[in-house]
Amino acid sequence: MTSAEQHERGLERLKELAGPNAEAVVEQLTALAPDLGRWIVDFVFGEVYSRPGLDLRTRQIVNVAALTALGTATPQLEVHLSGALNVGVTQEELIEIFLQLAVYAGFPASLNGIAALERVLAAREAATPPAAGV
Amino acid sequence: MTSAEQHERGLERLKELAGPNAEAVVEQLTALAPDLGRWIVDFVFGEVYSRPGLDLRTRQIVNVAALTALGTATPQLEVHLSGALNVGVTQEELIEIFLQLAVYAGFPASLNGIAALERVLAAREAATPPAAGV
Amino acid sequence: MTSAEQHERGLERLKELAGPNAEAVVEQLTALAPDLGRWIVDFVFGEVYSRPGLDLRTRQIVNVAALTALGTATPQLEVHLSGALNVGVTQEELIEIFLQLAVYAGFPASLNGIAALERVLAAREAATPPAAGV
Amino acid sequence: MTSAEQHERGLERLKELAGPNAEAVVEQLTALAPDLGRWIVDFVFGEVYSRPGLDLRTRQIVNVAALTALGTATPQLEVHLSGALNVGVTQEELIEIFLQLAVYAGFPASLNGIAALERVLAAREAATPPAAGV
Amino acid sequence: MTSAEQHERGLERLKELAGPNAEAVVEQLTALAPDLGRWIVDFVFGEVYSRPGLDLRTRQIVNVAALTALGTATPQLEVHLSGALNVGVTQEELIEIFLQLAVYAGFPASLNGIAALERVLAAREAATPPAAGV
Amino acid sequence: MTSAEQHERGLERLKELAGPNAEAVVEQLTALAPDLGRWIVDFVFGEVYSRPGLDLRTRQIVNVAALTALGTATPQLEVHLSGALNVGVTQEELIEIFLQLAVYAGFPASLNGIAALERVLAAREAATPPAAGV
Repeated sequence: MTSAEQHERGLERLKELAGPNAEAVVEQLTALAPDLGRWIVDFVFGEVYSRPGLDLRTRQIVNVAALTALGTATPQLEVHLSGALNVGVTQEELIEIFLQLAVYAGFPASLNGIAALERVLAAREAATPPAAGV
Repeated sequence: MTSAEQHERGLERLKELAGPNAEAVVEQLTALAPDLGRWIVDFVFGEVYSRPGLDLRTRQIVNVAALTALGTATPQLEVHLSGALNVGVTQEELIEIFLQLAVYAGFPASLNGIAALERVLAAREAATPPAAGV
Repeated sequence: MTSAEQHERGLERLKELAGPNAEAVVEQLTALAPDLGRWIVDFVFGEVYSRPGLDLRTRQIVNVAALTALGTATPQLEVHLSGALNVGVTQEELIEIFLQLAVYAGFPASLNGIAALERVLAAREAATPPAAGV
Repeated sequence: MTSAEQHERGLERLKELAGPNAEAVVEQLTALAPDLGRWIVDFVFGEVYSRPGLDLRTRQIVNVAALTALGTATPQLEVHLSGALNVGVTQEELIEIFLQLAVYAGFPASLNGIAALERVLAAREAATPPAAGV
Repeated sequence: MTSAEQHERGLERLKELAGPNAEAVVEQLTALAPDLGRWIVDFVFGEVYSRPGLDLRTRQIVNVAALTALGTATPQLEVHLSGALNVGVTQEELIEIFLQLAVYAGFPASLNGIAALERVLAAREAATPPAAGV
Repeated sequence: MTSAEQHERGLERLKELAGPNAEAVVEQLTALAPDLGRWIVDFVFGEVYSRPGLDLRTRQIVNVAALTALGTATPQLEVHLSGALNVGVTQEELIEIFLQLAVYAGFPASLNGIAALERVLAAREAATPPAAGV
């Protein structure tokens, strides 16, 4: 596979997750570091997310669990909560994940996850998806 | 539901995940703090894990992702890797989770996860499941 | 003890810490996940905080130290700084805790703790206690 | 106060916490970096721990809570669990702290704290206090 | 060296890093805890930063890497990004540090570092350096 | 640049840092996940480390600072301490980095970093470099 093909595959995967304007969002986030933007498309989405071993839905469950546990990546958690909803994880399942994480990451992590989900749901209702992550 | 019924339900769920001697393991881990052992059976397993909204397989994917991202709970990560294998997460899927986490928690977290999985697989082969967590 | 009694005990303990409208705050924070709200009242306050082995004042010292060290739970740190003041930890003692933590969690954790305390003191003076945690 | 006096005061405080051979332990831990050893005696113990605003007992409760929440400083957690016992925190109180931290730092942090306490109690029984921290 | 001389040396080092009004910023940040402000000048800058073994430029590279990896000290990261630019680390080098950290701390840490740098560059252009750290 | 060329470049960079048998070490660490081994050579070393904007010496200072601050990646910290010594960071500079980090990540992080350096120095003296990271 040429690197142009990998880039194309990454863009497809990224849009599947984050919607048609995802490429513009990545470019804006990495305006100071365009190579990081390229890595996100080519390596993160074109290579990691394009592996057949896990479907996008399960990848988003993994991301939400990891980012909630870390607690240091709120913009990215919001992006992946929205992405999770886009690829078929239900709101009810996201809440179950936060309840489960109370045991392993503590109740504050749970509450902060739920607050992030509330912001994401409000933004989706207002048709202004969160744009500060990837 | 009485608290005796909740305890019974928690024990069932715990054994489903960690095998028939799981109760003895919990008791040993919490010998200094028996009430913590009771909370693990009654609250963690009897209440949290017994919710219908996520199956045990998905809960284990959540746990593995969160514990790998935290990086501070190696004994518990080993227990839940073993538990994940017990409830139908395949070795291949666990490896995909670690590959995905390289992006979000860094390559060292990935490598440490894979090293934990190697220890778990070796212990299972030797029929001595890890006992230092829950 | 029935679960209704435990709920009652939890509510009492919660109000002792966070004031008469604490229940409404918990409900608002967990509107998306009412069972998490129930766990906070029944398990966290009715079970954990109701144990006789540590008084509420010492529990709040533990909470402030842990949340400052974690650094990922600012809303909850603010709630517990306010709770600490409510149950008799003095402002001077809270500052000493932050000074002590410079050694163990680093000077940034100390400075962020002090900034949180400033916000809490300002909100209490304005009679608008912080509401984003528990 | 001269810096010699501050050093003297730091040594006293350190021995109060960690026993008569504490100075030798610090020197051994910082053999590669003797100035770090000097900072521990002069700044950490001679300045921070010598402040009148918190007694040594409360400082140890703060340390145990913070180090358990961090989860990345097991040798130091063991030293401060032993120090806590030396200055009057009871084994029962330490266990209550770990139970309380299940809520804020997660059950794995609790279990790891209890395992550390078990090692400390065993070492004290064998008259070989842990030596890898400060 | 007397403690007055050490204080003087600390102030010089602090101004070298953070500009002529740095002392006022430290005083404001530690208004509730003036002794913490004194420690920052005397110990952090008068002792640690005044050691000859690393130049200020390398110290800032260390700080930026550590604070980006921690992810819990955004105000301090902004201060040290600005300080790094003040002592000769270029914008291009800061971006390379963030790209390198994608490997070790994950892509979200990278993206959050770049967002912090953007805020710092905007504030410097508007002649209003960030003031919430040290 | 073809992906074969990038792989070649990554191997060169990896050996520059970690010695001639580095490739075998990576393969062993990623035996369960060979694609992760390929990513480490091609993406981490062939792409990230091969950028001209930072020399290998500065990259290792960044790595040591970040891994010491994280506190969750001891095997990788040992690898990069050894790598730092291989590319010209002196033992004295590494110690200065740990002293500086006492301020930002706390004294336990400093002490754990120094203990890791001691293990690395002992292993290098015994001609058995640490092999559990990358």
